[in-house]
Amino acid sequence: MGCCHYPAVKEGCDSAFTVDTSRITFGPGCLLEVGDRARALGMKRVALFSDARVAGLPHFAKVRQSLLAAGLDVVVFTDVHVEPTDQSFLEAARFATEARPDGYVSLGGGSVIDTCKAANLYATHPADFLAYVNAPVGEGRAVPGPLKPHIACPTTSGTGSEVTGITIFDLLSLSAKTGIASPALRPTEALIDPDCTATLPGEVVAASGLDVLSHALESYTARPFVHRPAPARPSLRPMSQGANPWSDLGCREALRLMGLYLERGVKDARDTEAREQLMWAATLAGIAFGNAGVHAPHGMAYAVAGRVRDFRPSGYPQDEPLVPHGLAVIVNAPAVFRYTAAAHPERHLEAAGLLGADVRGASSGDAGEVLAGRIVQLMRAVGVPNGLEGVGYTGEDVDALTEGAFPQQRLLQNAPREMTRPVLTELFRQALRYW
Amino acid sequence: MGCCHYPAVKEGCDSAFTVDTSRITFGPGCLLEVGDRARALGMKRVALFSDARVAGLPHFAKVRQSLLAAGLDVVVFTDVHVEPTDQSFLEAARFATEARPDGYVSLGGGSVIDTCKAANLYATHPADFLAYVNAPVGEGRAVPGPLKPHIACPTTSGTGSEVTGITIFDLLSLSAKTGIASPALRPTEALIDPDCTATLPGEVVAASGLDVLSHALESYTARPFVHRPAPARPSLRPMSQGANPWSDLGCREALRLMGLYLERGVKDARDTEAREQLMWAATLAGIAFGNAGVHAPHGMAYAVAGRVRDFRPSGYPQDEPLVPHGLAVIVNAPAVFRYTAAAHPERHLEAAGLLGADVRGASSGDAGEVLAGRIVQLMRAVGVPNGLEGVGYTGEDVDALTEGAFPQQRLLQNAPREMTRPVLTELFRQALRYW
Ligand SMILES: NC(=O)c1ccc[n+]([C@@H]2O[C@H](COP(=O)([O-])OP(=O)(O)OC[C@H]3O[C@@H](n4cnc5c(N)ncnc54)[C@H](O)[C@@H]3O)[C@@H](O)[C@H]2O)c1
Ligand SMILES: NC(=O)c1ccc[n+]([C@@H]2O[C@H](COP(=O)([O-])OP(=O)(O)OC[C@H]3O[C@@H](n4cnc5c(N)ncnc54)[C@H](O)[C@@H]3O)[C@@H](O)[C@H]2O)c1
Ligand SMILES: [Zn+2]
Ligand SMILES: [Zn+2]
Ligand SMILES: [Zn+2]
Ligand SMILES: [Zn+2]
Repeated sequence: MGCCHYPAVKEGCDSAFTVDTSRITFGPGCLLEVGDRARALGMKRVALFSDARVAGLPHFAKVRQSLLAAGLDVVVFTDVHVEPTDQSFLEAARFATEARPDGYVSLGGGSVIDTCKAANLYATHPADFLAYVNAPVGEGRAVPGPLKPHIACPTTSGTGSEVTGITIFDLLSLSAKTGIASPALRPTEALIDPDCTATLPGEVVAASGLDVLSHALESYTARPFVHRPAPARPSLRPMSQGANPWSDLGCREALRLMGLYLERGVKDARDTEAREQLMWAATLAGIAFGNAGVHAPHGMAYAVAGRVRDFRPSGYPQDEPLVPHGLAVIVNAPAVFRYTAAAHPERHLEAAGLLGADVRGASSGDAGEVLAGRIVQLMRAVGVPNGLEGVGYTGEDVDALTEGAFPQQRLLQNAPREMTRPVLTELFRQALRYW
Repeated sequence: MGCCHYPAVKEGCDSAFTVDTSRITFGPGCLLEVGDRARALGMKRVALFSDARVAGLPHFAKVRQSLLAAGLDVVVFTDVHVEPTDQSFLEAARFATEARPDGYVSLGGGSVIDTCKAANLYATHPADFLAYVNAPVGEGRAVPGPLKPHIACPTTSGTGSEVTGITIFDLLSLSAKTGIASPALRPTEALIDPDCTATLPGEVVAASGLDVLSHALESYTARPFVHRPAPARPSLRPMSQGANPWSDLGCREALRLMGLYLERGVKDARDTEAREQLMWAATLAGIAFGNAGVHAPHGMAYAVAGRVRDFRPSGYPQDEPLVPHGLAVIVNAPAVFRYTAAAHPERHLEAAGLLGADVRGASSGDAGEVLAGRIVQLMRAVGVPNGLEGVGYTGEDVDALTEGAFPQQRLLQNAPREMTRPVLTELFRQALRYW
């Protein structure tokens, strides 16, 4: 029942972990709480963020109505770019700077919640765009103080952005995704209403569900916190602190739920039980990875998404090519876990079992293969593309992808085995196709 | 793997639950982080709370030293009463009012942390003592605003008070325990250092461990949140919201750890693995019951502790009779769970299994008996008294105990079956002795 054996603290490494979790409310219908909660947080003038598609759905009308009924001023920004960029972040920040809200509500998937975090950040603490962006791409400057209150309402089952201090965007000039990470970015509260997922296209349930699955797997297999160098001062302990007993709990439950409900939730929008459980799994995996951090599949994904050529998946906006985040992640996952299993085979095997693989008789040496096999099985069951080739890459791209992924050191160092350039190249090569 | 089936929402009942968790840091040695963290919270003049015994231990010197090294003023209050009373709370509040600290650090068991919460409350928002006390004993007035920052450092594996918005005391005039419950009471952060437990007498590990076990069992079997009447406004949803998928996670892990480590941790102070795991279980159960609430064993315990006559357990201060909280709770537990099992047999059976009972072949009808049997087995293994008779009561006391417990409606209504006066009387009768 759980691989709870942590190794001894390595010389110079950390011996404690810190859990930071924001307030969340979960349950069908809870979107209607937004007005009361915004007022309780002292908001008077609310900036409501969404994207064009979500703004046309009944969820959006509900939220707006609830805010108005609570007597609040509402200014609306619905121009969020799906898979946001530095450009689209700046546009949102300009809106917020001019609108001068005293609080934020975001309703949408990770693209919307991340955009709202960025707008809140740059409107509250103006700075050059690269100032707060993770080094080495940006300056990695610390956020100087708290932001305005933000209630995040996710509509995908999904990124977990509603509970993390992370925002991700595509830096167009570099053709690579990167992000900003600070506890100050974590929304004040989250309202997680599984009713929102009824309108999700199956393709989005599949991609965002596989993102969740990888959040849980990466956090569960991350370098253990006792192998991460101790911070100079405890208050500098990073959010991505490595696998720890707290994140393990959320990971295990998220994996179990994914194994049971992913396929059902993708295939049948009326299967409310499955869609509700997927939403809960997304929340748990978000809490877990917000405290443990993800590693190589995400680090590699930032190159895969950033260098997109002509992939236009159904279920997503068709106006420009994009590799949805969840697909950009999952195409790397089987290759990565086949490689990382050697660092801690029991954990990889246990994860496979939680995901529903038959692990009877499997030995330590089989762990990577069994886990990779189960991921591939789930990918096929929900109809996502076959590896990097499925999203438009060929063997010729492997070097460029490696160069794109290697700077993601914050993520790569959270992996349980070393991720050198040659290792990344080999992993991308293995990720080209799986079946 | 987990009784995760929640019933449908009852007419007029709640359909969502809210999770509120404060920052915690867990790990050997983390007490040394207190100075840096107090300063990061903006403290300049810290009131350090403890009790006479803990103040003489090396943990106390460490905390004080760390605060001083961070350049903070430290004023010390070490007169906490073990199992605090309204008198002792008032004395602590007077100290705080005069000392005018801008932040609090508590180092000790539940008695110390609870006293520090009360001192912070009455020094920050002065009021008649009964104003904030739970109705019907007190007025149940809402705390008007946030308190001063408080870093709680538990030294027992234990109450979970470091993560809850609850403080408990003995109201001497009524010979009954009661409390104050408000999210404002929840400490700002907790530093949970399992090294503190090395100096605990086995009797305290046993009593506080059985408290933890009951926190987890009560939260896991509490009336499900979907059977609790919906609040008038969402921001009024109570902390004790009933069993929910979030609290379930912490409960299950705490029960599993208790089954594995309680006996080892009680019997051998040098078994650091066991004592560390018990500390982690206490944290998880604290988070769980802080969000779900406890029920009948605790409601009944407040009468058992309040009416103490001449019980003086070894391991505790000997200057006056007391029934330690954990013992006052656990003597009721087998009788209660035998009765509540009918409300949800699978959950009770699953809890028994997590605690290490052999549940193969057990049917729904056996659930109460199997769970009660496993609790009794653990009680005997760690050498605690045999039911109410073991802590000094007889059959003659059952009516008075019922009268003492019945006003604890906040807790009793969180039980999964009705707790009328006759039911309580019968449960106390069954709790007189178990072997
Ligand atoms: N901040 C974090 O911690 C974090 C973690 C992982 C990923 N991300 C980022 O989040 C983004 C991806 O977010 P996502 O996967 O939630 O998808 P998304 O926000 O990009 O939305 C995907 C598509 O689904 C539509 N949609 C969303 N909710 C809908 C609903 N209820 N009904 C119908 N259509 C709906 C959107 O309009 C969009 O077309 C990426 O930019 C990724 O990098 C952030
Ligand atoms: N606020 C809550 O959420 C909550 C929950 C449950 C119980 N409680 C309350 O907490 C109190 C009980 O707290 P407790 O069980 O933690 O015990 P405690 O604080 O009463 O301490 C018990 C004894 O152990 C000693 N002690 C504590 N730490 C020690 C250490 N590391 N080494 C040696 N001795 C040590 C104390 O000096 C005391 O004599 C009761 O008043 C109970 O009602 C509060
Ligand atoms: Zn292991
Ligand atoms: Zn992701
Ligand atoms: Zn059930
Ligand atoms: Zn208790």
